[in-house]
Amino acid sequence: MMHNFQNDYSEGAHSAILERLVQTNLTQQAGYGQDEYAIAARELLRQRLNNSRAAIFFASGGTQANLLVISALLRPHEAVISAETGHIQVHETGAIEAVGHRIITVPPTDGKLWPEDLQKVLAAHTMRPHMVRPRLVYISNSTETGSFYSRAELQALYAACKDLDLLLFMDGARLGHALTAVGNDLRMEDLSYFTDVFYIGATKNGGLLGEAIVFNDPELCTDFDFIMKQKGAMLSKGRLLGIQFQVLFEHNLYFDLAQYANQQAARIAQAFAEAGFSFLHPPVTNQVFPILPIELINTLRKRFLFYDWKPMGDQGTATRWICSWATSDQAVEALQNAVAPQATWGN
Amino acid sequence: MMHNFQNDYSEGAHSAILERLVQTNLTQQAGYGQDEYAIAARELLRQRLNNSRAAIFFASGGTQANLLVISALLRPHEAVISAETGHIQVHETGAIEAVGHRIITVPPTDGKLWPEDLQKVLAAHTMRPHMVRPRLVYISNSTETGSFYSRAELQALYAACKDLDLLLFMDGARLGHALTAVGNDLRMEDLSYFTDVFYIGATKNGGLLGEAIVFNDPELCTDFDFIMKQKGAMLSKGRLLGIQFQVLFEHNLYFDLAQYANQQAARIAQAFAEAGFSFLHPPVTNQVFPILPIELINTLRKRFLFYDWKPMGDQGTATRWICSWATSDQAVEALQNAVAPQATWGN
Amino acid sequence: MMHNFQNDYSEGAHSAILERLVQTNLTQQAGYGQDEYAIAARELLRQRLNNSRAAIFFASGGTQANLLVISALLRPHEAVISAETGHIQVHETGAIEAVGHRIITVPPTDGKLWPEDLQKVLAAHTMRPHMVRPRLVYISNSTETGSFYSRAELQALYAACKDLDLLLFMDGARLGHALTAVGNDLRMEDLSYFTDVFYIGATKNGGLLGEAIVFNDPELCTDFDFIMKQKGAMLSKGRLLGIQFQVLFEHNLYFDLAQYANQQAARIAQAFAEAGFSFLHPPVTNQVFPILPIELINTLRKRFLFYDWKPMGDQGTATRWICSWATSDQAVEALQNAVAPQATWGN
Amino acid sequence: MMHNFQNDYSEGAHSAILERLVQTNLTQQAGYGQDEYAIAARELLRQRLNNSRAAIFFASGGTQANLLVISALLRPHEAVISAETGHIQVHETGAIEAVGHRIITVPPTDGKLWPEDLQKVLAAHTMRPHMVRPRLVYISNSTETGSFYSRAELQALYAACKDLDLLLFMDGARLGHALTAVGNDLRMEDLSYFTDVFYIGATKNGGLLGEAIVFNDPELCTDFDFIMKQKGAMLSKGRLLGIQFQVLFEHNLYFDLAQYANQQAARIAQAFAEAGFSFLHPPVTNQVFPILPIELINTLRKRFLFYDWKPMGDQGTATRWICSWATSDQAVEALQNAVAPQATWGN
Repeated sequence: MMHNFQNDYSEGAHSAILERLVQTNLTQQAGYGQDEYAIAARELLRQRLNNSRAAIFFASGGTQANLLVISALLRPHEAVISAETGHIQVHETGAIEAVGHRIITVPPTDGKLWPEDLQKVLAAHTMRPHMVRPRLVYISNSTETGSFYSRAELQALYAACKDLDLLLFMDGARLGHALTAVGNDLRMEDLSYFTDVFYIGATKNGGLLGEAIVFNDPELCTDFDFIMKQKGAMLSKGRLLGIQFQVLFEHNLYFDLAQYANQQAARIAQAFAEAGFSFLHPPVTNQVFPILPIELINTLRKRFLFYDWKPMGDQGTATRWICSWATSDQAVEALQNAVAPQATWGN
Repeated sequence: MMHNFQNDYSEGAHSAILERLVQTNLTQQAGYGQDEYAIAARELLRQRLNNSRAAIFFASGGTQANLLVISALLRPHEAVISAETGHIQVHETGAIEAVGHRIITVPPTDGKLWPEDLQKVLAAHTMRPHMVRPRLVYISNSTETGSFYSRAELQALYAACKDLDLLLFMDGARLGHALTAVGNDLRMEDLSYFTDVFYIGATKNGGLLGEAIVFNDPELCTDFDFIMKQKGAMLSKGRLLGIQFQVLFEHNLYFDLAQYANQQAARIAQAFAEAGFSFLHPPVTNQVFPILPIELINTLRKRFLFYDWKPMGDQGTATRWICSWATSDQAVEALQNAVAPQATWGN
Repeated sequence: MMHNFQNDYSEGAHSAILERLVQTNLTQQAGYGQDEYAIAARELLRQRLNNSRAAIFFASGGTQANLLVISALLRPHEAVISAETGHIQVHETGAIEAVGHRIITVPPTDGKLWPEDLQKVLAAHTMRPHMVRPRLVYISNSTETGSFYSRAELQALYAACKDLDLLLFMDGARLGHALTAVGNDLRMEDLSYFTDVFYIGATKNGGLLGEAIVFNDPELCTDFDFIMKQKGAMLSKGRLLGIQFQVLFEHNLYFDLAQYANQQAARIAQAFAEAGFSFLHPPVTNQVFPILPIELINTLRKRFLFYDWKPMGDQGTATRWICSWATSDQAVEALQNAVAPQATWGN
Repeated sequence: MMHNFQNDYSEGAHSAILERLVQTNLTQQAGYGQDEYAIAARELLRQRLNNSRAAIFFASGGTQANLLVISALLRPHEAVISAETGHIQVHETGAIEAVGHRIITVPPTDGKLWPEDLQKVLAAHTMRPHMVRPRLVYISNSTETGSFYSRAELQALYAACKDLDLLLFMDGARLGHALTAVGNDLRMEDLSYFTDVFYIGATKNGGLLGEAIVFNDPELCTDFDFIMKQKGAMLSKGRLLGIQFQVLFEHNLYFDLAQYANQQAARIAQAFAEAGFSFLHPPVTNQVFPILPIELINTLRKRFLFYDWKPMGDQGTATRWICSWATSDQAVEALQNAVAPQATWGN
């Protein structure tokens, strides 16, 4: 039997979600996101965010959420600023360009963008009308390298955005993992103050599918329903999304699941560290990037699923291991044993 | 309590689907449509279609399926031919134009397109390069007016397409209702012979969401996976779609559910007919369009949900009533009673 | 020798334009529309339009001007309303759809749109968010059938647009021919009051190429320079366009040329009428659509170039004959002789 | 009086072109690129290229040519590889993204791409379907830094493209300057062997406007006429483009003009070198990038137009000076005097 650390979407959904789907199944509901569960979920989120004006829409996945938000917010000649590692740049098959916009990439520091990055991009794009106009900053939290934005970092970045007439959009496919990380001081409601728009990912944190897109200022999305429908993103049975966010946020399930994933990841990170391995990126959320020798990789591959991430020359290869709400203790312990210093891998 | 005849997506999913979701929930699966359920469902469909070469992809909804297929198959200057009543023309917020293509509309006969319609369109688009090139014919089965294509009709239309170098694409959001209609002689496997691409809708026939897109010739879709990902249509937990189609097609559930919906619709059609009302379109599948006087409409509206479809002058208004796999006998009987000739509506 | 009545762009440019190109050739000028000739031409047009706020841009052709204006003014889900005969619908290869927008077509009366047409379109597009939002009305003046808008007609149409929150855009590829037609009472400056944006076509009225796009309110086009550059529409040697509009509008050349074309067209229309032929559309500008028997068409085709426009059954075929600023008296007289009642065509 | 070294499009056209426009002005011609001059120009180019199969289209400018070719050749998920300095990346306002495609940028060496650059890009884009597919390589010759591709370099790059299933597209906005540079060994006809598609720029080499797009294999452009019309790139008076290319290529004018520009540039490069200044890029075509101290820049700015190109810290600023077919000896001599070592600039 293989233990899967390859991604955080290999299981279905948390059982509470399935139970609620079963319970509510035959209730007749309005379609297209107007069901009572969606309405309740929006209200729960507005309270949690301390923003009664927030406009909230439910989409099916991260790429879809990204292309919807960006195509809705930009004029044809406007561009997105993203880290080189940003998901929209690396793993979305040109979805942003397909809706007409350039991504201006910046080499990130610790997986993140910083105010001076934005200033440099603006300074390099002054030759009107021969250049695109940078208009929206795309960040992920937690980031693609597993790091998270502190409250002060996000506040400073948002202030820079406002100074520079830029919108700030946070991809929260793994938002729960950022907000529950050890050392994080960013609160859910801070997203109301320090972003223009963001989304809360359920697909990678216990849901079957679903991202809740939140516009802090409803003036930014007066026609977002049209855009969703036009891009094929509006489910007729929107209840499927509404129910999940209601379950995840009526108590603390969303955060409990993310914290659990982080804790399991911390256990495997510790195991790698104790075995003497270093990391491509510091392990702080649910993604762990140990740099491993080829022999160990070959041994581990027989019993574990994970990604080869980046060749590191003599050091071996940086690998990626992800824990989720569903990562079992058994899997973690199997890995702990497999990498323990006394283990005789590679012999 | 209101009885809902407004659409066929107001409930969740058939219980067999939910049960399977629960059963399989913690099995670890590959993402992005490579899960074992999707693989099994594709195989079931290929057998049912008698086409071992068919390439099958699962999308989340009809608008999404339509824009994916059309954007994948057309060059920038190529256009779609559709009935004026076609869903892509009427209810998809310009999704086809948003991916760059014109819809050339034709007034349908009985909700359908016919060979001579295609010939006329081609004859009107000869002024190269000042005109778009008609290249793909979009039809729905069952149609937006509730009718269905007979085997001979589809065969003739497909032959015309081949003569005219056109692709034939069938929107099967309500395919089950067409194939199980009284009087239908088109078999599932005929779709392999008389279309180039089509989809099988689950959203409106017992699924939570999902349309199975079938390319009869895999050469037509060698890069369709890229297109799906780029348009935000590839679910990371593709299992959600695979499971549903497996359940719907491992036995005969898909057709049983559609037939049930048609039967409930026939009962209400009969009730309207016996009360002396005529229909905007002949009632043959799960959509019924009785033309009703305003007084009756006002009375019915207190207890039933349905659509005002088209004003008909002195005759009153054509209304639309839809039955689904979930329409209860209780609801049908309540309606039967409400429109029975002895009922004293309007007094 | 063939006489060409097929289009109004078969010659080069009026000699005054070529002379000015030669005179100014070696003057060094700023590129991209900032040359002194463009600046002067804009000022001449603002004066002629009695609108000192007008923002003016020079494009290379009608299709380009249409797609630039429409893509700049519409949100993704917004649509254009056009006559079925509109150039964007009939002869621009889906250019508007290629920038993402639906054209909603209306059967025109006398080639024109009327306030009630707009009301009907709006009434049919209320099902938000499942339908596009009609937002811009596209008209041509003179129209594709050779008719023109009277002052009262344009004023009423514009008032309807404002009532319905629609923008009014006039394609003026043949604007000069409309404004100099016998019976026209619309003045150049009325375009400032009764449209939101329009363009003044030079390509079909004495220029080598060029359409001057005028936004009456500069707030509508704050980023139009970016859009032009992005669509490949900004000539580095913009002087080529500026010079032509300066020559055409520093005196009355633009209108003199159009009036001449209309007068030549009136002469040939009279010849057809006197020979007993009727017209598909009343001949009032530089396009003439006589319905001719096949024998005459065959005879005329030996010495004249013109278009077969529309089969008319027993009556024969409606043909299109166009006169331009360059149509010679010799050509007109040859045609007069060829269709004169005493001529023995067809014998 | 200011001497303009800022660009190569500040004058009109070479006098031979204007003369021919005047001579041919009243000849009646077919529109849309079917005029006899365009036909003759195509034939001249095919002979010069030793490729009787070449399919040739005339566009109005470089950005337009780039977006036409790229949008015609790529599927939606396919991407362009370009140098970071490529014109499509730097100075075209996102025109390529606006037609839906990502530009994958590579840091160039000497302004050029090399086979190993392509291999690295392909190696980094294997994660199907989550990444775009690199499909077309965009290069400029001469490049944006003034360098040119030798015959061997282009041959090797093309061989790599074929190995990697990539198309090679050369932006020849300044092709003449490359082919007539001192040390160049690439011949015009080599473009038939070592590219898939390229264009020959007239706008920056003596024309009023115009780029001749050449597809070496006509199978690559079977519907390019539709694409041109759809993008607003097809001039109704196509004669304007045809005439210019006929004049430029019926004798050797195109190359004579480019060589002249290179020679004038060599004179100013020598003047800067003799005054002790170094260059950001070696001066080999008509663009010269001397690194100058601020004092000299300030002095020169009073009498010369040129661009500040890149700050170079203590060294001063890299500037760009361009010569064209129209750069006068007087201007060159004025600059020679201004930078001569004995000149007392900055005092």
